[in-house]
Amino acid sequence: MNKVVLGIDIGGTNTVYGLIEQSGHVLFRGQIPTFGNEPAQNLANRLREKVDYFLEDHPDHELTGVGVGAPNGNHFTGVIQDPPNLNWGDVDIVSILKKKFSYDIILTNDANAAALGEKKFGIAKDMNDFVMITLGTGLGSGIFTNGSLLYGYDGFAGEMGHLSIDPEGRLCNCGRKGCLEMYVSAKGIRKSVNELKVKNPDDTFIQSLPEKGLDGRVLDKAFDAGERAAIELYQFTGEKLGIGLAQAATLLSPEAFIIYGGYSNAGERLLEPARRAMDEYLLSSHKGKILILQSSLPQSEAGIIGAASLIWSPRTV
Amino acid sequence: MNKVVLGIDIGGTNTVYGLIEQSGHVLFRGQIPTFGNEPAQNLANRLREKVDYFLEDHPDHELTGVGVGAPNGNHFTGVIQDPPNLNWGDVDIVSILKKKFSYDIILTNDANAAALGEKKFGIAKDMNDFVMITLGTGLGSGIFTNGSLLYGYDGFAGEMGHLSIDPEGRLCNCGRKGCLEMYVSAKGIRKSVNELKVKNPDDTFIQSLPEKGLDGRVLDKAFDAGERAAIELYQFTGEKLGIGLAQAATLLSPEAFIIYGGYSNAGERLLEPARRAMDEYLLSSHKGKILILQSSLPQSEAGIIGAASLIWSPRTV
Repeated sequence: MNKVVLGIDIGGTNTVYGLIEQSGHVLFRGQIPTFGNEPAQNLANRLREKVDYFLEDHPDHELTGVGVGAPNGNHFTGVIQDPPNLNWGDVDIVSILKKKFSYDIILTNDANAAALGEKKFGIAKDMNDFVMITLGTGLGSGIFTNGSLLYGYDGFAGEMGHLSIDPEGRLCNCGRKGCLEMYVSAKGIRKSVNELKVKNPDDTFIQSLPEKGLDGRVLDKAFDAGERAAIELYQFTGEKLGIGLAQAATLLSPEAFIIYGGYSNAGERLLEPARRAMDEYLLSSHKGKILILQSSLPQSEAGIIGAASLIWSPRTV
Repeated sequence: MNKVVLGIDIGGTNTVYGLIEQSGHVLFRGQIPTFGNEPAQNLANRLREKVDYFLEDHPDHELTGVGVGAPNGNHFTGVIQDPPNLNWGDVDIVSILKKKFSYDIILTNDANAAALGEKKFGIAKDMNDFVMITLGTGLGSGIFTNGSLLYGYDGFAGEMGHLSIDPEGRLCNCGRKGCLEMYVSAKGIRKSVNELKVKNPDDTFIQSLPEKGLDGRVLDKAFDAGERAAIELYQFTGEKLGIGLAQAATLLSPEAFIIYGGYSNAGERLLEPARRAMDEYLLSSHKGKILILQSSLPQSEAGIIGAASLIWSPRTV
């Protein structure tokens, strides 16, 4: 029998899942809507169906466990705590999945899952100290120290999106000011675009951007075409990112920050100004030493193979 | 033979040393001036003499290693890098000590040594995730994650004194602005006192404080006597400390911050406002969960017994 693990990456809009071999090879992969307005049981039922379809066609494969990455997923308790963009409140996802899948089920947060994926199968393979930054609706982080994931005392270490870079900065949903994700994330970029709209009433490009559902590829194209506002937007966002990374590096001294998720596709457009700002704000003993890299894993895979490695190698978790 | 380790805690003004048994018991302890204007060899010679005096009188004791804590001490290279308040530049202290002591010699920074001491023999014995904060001339930190000291990629993790709490704040010697130690340390408190002097020209207490060598005990007494300026000073300093701790907690999620060193003797005068500010600035998921404690070890001992445990239990380092 070919043993496989189900890796699940629960997102605010969609949930990616896949059956993964111990080598990290993704046997098959799919995506379904999360339906955050329905109870989480609904998602568990639909995932079970999808997996059954596959296993019926592949009787030589045996499911041996389920690894789950989710926003605000607490590794210690198995509970997703009031996840943003989902109306679930606190939900004991491990118990819910257990009813549908009678295997080992392990939960971590989505950024930790991506960090695990990068450590097991990506460019962080030989790194013991690195930070995975996920740029989605918000900004998440998964921190490796001394070769293992940092959970902290209560399982909630790595809330780098809420590192404040300016005590008088933008107000965050969390009630505090200047949180990094209010500048560097889909949410933050939307705020920056709105500020640019006010500042540049005659700029046809910036005025043409939609209020919601801004597509990063549109910004990338505009940047490449030399649109002043798109360049200013990435410079500004990259600089804020660099300031936040310098703050984190002062405590953690990592080998690299690895950027993952939607907006990471901007690549050097964002990372070049981030690198410059980080080096400006780093202590002299750190300057020029810390890498900012783009994730080496396919956008849709780091989360699920990282989640699967919760089962395959619990000891490094 | 009774095996002992020499623990050395090199400070900007004085160096504390002691012979320590595996139990953590300090057999004997002394203090000599560091003489930062003399070469480091001079300090090594004087330490060797002191240890020889003791061992000649105690022939049943055998020295088996030397552990050293020093500001900017790099565990990986054995080099103290341009230590503040010492004119040594970069000095390979491990090689220098090796010439006088032909044993295992291990270096770490002073705050890490104190953290090790607290972990081995103090209130952090059962903690896997905590941060030791040393309040001396500057502010140092030693971070435990997953039960071991965090060195990071290059050995320089834990520079919490240089976490910026205000991008437009006080200018630090490091060239950056708003570093925590510009508010919370002897250096920072001196600056705050000078600001209070300008703000309160008629306050006889605050005007009576010396420009240099401000004694924390004078402030403590004034606080207890209800001096408005002393109360304001500790409130202000404690609040800045709390903001810095909240920032660090957002990344590290520790069980406790443990405060050590000269100004930690202020105790609740400083820790009460720090606790209040930290809880105000923490994410709601962390609020009320993270302790701020005073070190349980004698002021002069955590450094040397921590340094000694570099030899006694290298695996937890």
